[in-house]
Amino acid sequence: MLEDASIRDLTALMTAARAAYDVISVSSAAQRHEALMEIASALRKHEAEILEANKLDLAHAEGNAAFLDRLTLTSQRLQDMAEAVERIAALPDPVGKVMQEWTRPNGLVIRQVSTPIGVIGMIFESRPNVGVDAAALCIKSGNAIILRGGSESFHSTQSLMRAVQQGLRHAGLPGATVQSVPDTDRARVTEMLHAQGQIDLLIPRGGKSLVTRVMQESRVPVLAHAEGLCHSFVHQDARLEMARAVTANAKMRRPGICGATETLLLDRAIAPTFLPVLVTDLHALGCHCRGDAAARAILPTLDPASESDFATEWLDAELSIAIVDGVEGACAHIRRYGSGHTEAIITENEAAAESFMRGVPSAVVMWNASTQFCDGGEFGFGGEIGISTGRLHARGPVGVAQLTTYRYEVRGDGQTRP
Amino acid sequence: MLEDASIRDLTALMTAARAAYDVISVSSAAQRHEALMEIASALRKHEAEILEANKLDLAHAEGNAAFLDRLTLTSQRLQDMAEAVERIAALPDPVGKVMQEWTRPNGLVIRQVSTPIGVIGMIFESRPNVGVDAAALCIKSGNAIILRGGSESFHSTQSLMRAVQQGLRHAGLPGATVQSVPDTDRARVTEMLHAQGQIDLLIPRGGKSLVTRVMQESRVPVLAHAEGLCHSFVHQDARLEMARAVTANAKMRRPGICGATETLLLDRAIAPTFLPVLVTDLHALGCHCRGDAAARAILPTLDPASESDFATEWLDAELSIAIVDGVEGACAHIRRYGSGHTEAIITENEAAAESFMRGVPSAVVMWNASTQFCDGGEFGFGGEIGISTGRLHARGPVGVAQLTTYRYEVRGDGQTRP
Repeated sequence: MLEDASIRDLTALMTAARAAYDVISVSSAAQRHEALMEIASALRKHEAEILEANKLDLAHAEGNAAFLDRLTLTSQRLQDMAEAVERIAALPDPVGKVMQEWTRPNGLVIRQVSTPIGVIGMIFESRPNVGVDAAALCIKSGNAIILRGGSESFHSTQSLMRAVQQGLRHAGLPGATVQSVPDTDRARVTEMLHAQGQIDLLIPRGGKSLVTRVMQESRVPVLAHAEGLCHSFVHQDARLEMARAVTANAKMRRPGICGATETLLLDRAIAPTFLPVLVTDLHALGCHCRGDAAARAILPTLDPASESDFATEWLDAELSIAIVDGVEGACAHIRRYGSGHTEAIITENEAAAESFMRGVPSAVVMWNASTQFCDGGEFGFGGEIGISTGRLHARGPVGVAQLTTYRYEVRGDGQTRP
Repeated sequence: MLEDASIRDLTALMTAARAAYDVISVSSAAQRHEALMEIASALRKHEAEILEANKLDLAHAEGNAAFLDRLTLTSQRLQDMAEAVERIAALPDPVGKVMQEWTRPNGLVIRQVSTPIGVIGMIFESRPNVGVDAAALCIKSGNAIILRGGSESFHSTQSLMRAVQQGLRHAGLPGATVQSVPDTDRARVTEMLHAQGQIDLLIPRGGKSLVTRVMQESRVPVLAHAEGLCHSFVHQDARLEMARAVTANAKMRRPGICGATETLLLDRAIAPTFLPVLVTDLHALGCHCRGDAAARAILPTLDPASESDFATEWLDAELSIAIVDGVEGACAHIRRYGSGHTEAIITENEAAAESFMRGVPSAVVMWNASTQFCDGGEFGFGGEIGISTGRLHARGPVGVAQLTTYRYEVRGDGQTRP
């Protein structure tokens, strides 16, 4: 039976998180590695108890089959979670890395050294494994984390976090490094948004309304994306076969992820020949397409795409199509409608690709690749706690390196400033 | 006569700033260099007009001699400003730097490339040269900036910014890259704090009350320090002569800067011999010292230091002194009272120094050097727009490199995600 060490009062819980941060932030890489291996082992060992807690959630759950499936834990899914924790354990240590070092004329040696951020707050409404992944990434990077999962997965998350805390304690680290908010009261979310100085960074993950609310109301810095309104632009110098493969993948591999393409931009010069082929492909994959007036002039059977369609993150087998004039037209469209997430250009023309990549203000820009590659795993980060469309600190996939900040260490031999 | 191209409405001004950012963010390093050289030249050429505007401010100014001195522009001070702009022009280009590059097993090449942040807002109540420095640093790093200076320097700032805008236009860049809020209405500050999506980053510079207000009320991310409550810790293995020189410099070189030491921490083991010497030195320099009970047991003539004294940023010839137990005691004191700015340890003991530097959560940690070295110029940044005590994006001195963010460029040859 896993010990329930949870603190009932959020203020006390945040104080405990800070004290735990003071310990884990100066712990050795070996100790953090050991904690993660112990956590993987606890997740496996306490499978019966965790699945029991999950049954409690499922008993009260209401929703469609997809929702219930996301909520359901199985022996296999616990195994997958444990393996994900082990993969994070195997990553190189992101803490204490000398990022830059230089010597000043007066002999002072200045080092920029990576260091954990502090106490992270995470508000999520996704599957229970998101909490375990986030906990593992924070432990690896020497941070403490406070999790506030959806009320529908409350018992599952509490149970998983008891296993995580056991793993931490077995490695000699404070259990309070990872804590879950001890009730489902929505007031806790508001308290977290106003916890300046107690929580150093908030990471919301979930639907647009949750993330937008956090972004608008939070007094604590936020890393997140409210939307992934990604574009794929097929330039006039694209090869048709590559455009077909990349476009189909960018939209339809998994239409519901934030890196899925929502709008296809087609260069006017090749639209008459490319559009019918691309739309036929997409129709064959079950994707519904809408086009602007220029697209419908080429393909009159297309449904019309309205102004608001181009501002819509479909997250579904739906695609908006606009005909644009070259790189400049594509960049202008993206500046107007994009959400700063991921944009791709398909072209054989290097100058056009470079100009596109510099011309859009998004976190991730791609040349001849599917926008669905915007993912911490695909970037080689070994996992991600989220994706940021903000301009500061971290952009794109947020992995363990992005969960660190830095300090300057200045070494002298008694220098005084003239 | 310099052209007055200022926009009277703040919303229109922010729209113009965004449009200017779209241009300067993709401009060449040569063009930004040229703009800065043109600005230096305009500052010199329009000296008479700028000094005239300054006289308008001085005619209405009320304050002590130090305040009036800070506000006063002279031919020499304009010359210094122009030279500062030229020094910033000479810095290496911070934009478009490949920070990291790696290749994934599927052949995707991922590059992390530095890129300008966007529209910076700066609210300051310091000397007029602060606005010119900030403008030059933002131009160098490809950002647009909106300045809101103190009402006491309104005409000076407006005139200086007309010279800056002329320099930009002469180099073919939009004048609106640098704009000054066109009136002294305090409501503009509130508007800037709520300009989410229009201003990407706010940098307040001034007194604690201004900066604290911005930090608490802003909906826009903030880089700043509200206080520099810096500590110097003299460890038991310090050399007395070095401790004397560094302590005196850290406190008294310029007591009013944010990197000045406000509290001296003395290791209990050496306090009986070191304390009288250090205090005698400081008294000779005109510094008033207060001590905790342990310090007063050694030196009964010391005034008592209260709990609130240790939480006070003196910015003056005043020093609080506490006796602590080794590195651990020093770190505990700093965690309790520090503002996350700069802390130093004086010791010949490397293990103690390393443990101290890891044990305090501040942006800058120093070993055997004066805390007054926390400065963009002293770090070799060629200037600074401010100093940050936050945990995210940039910490310590904020120079041109810290005024950039990054994007990921992903280059493929048609990869699709499996």
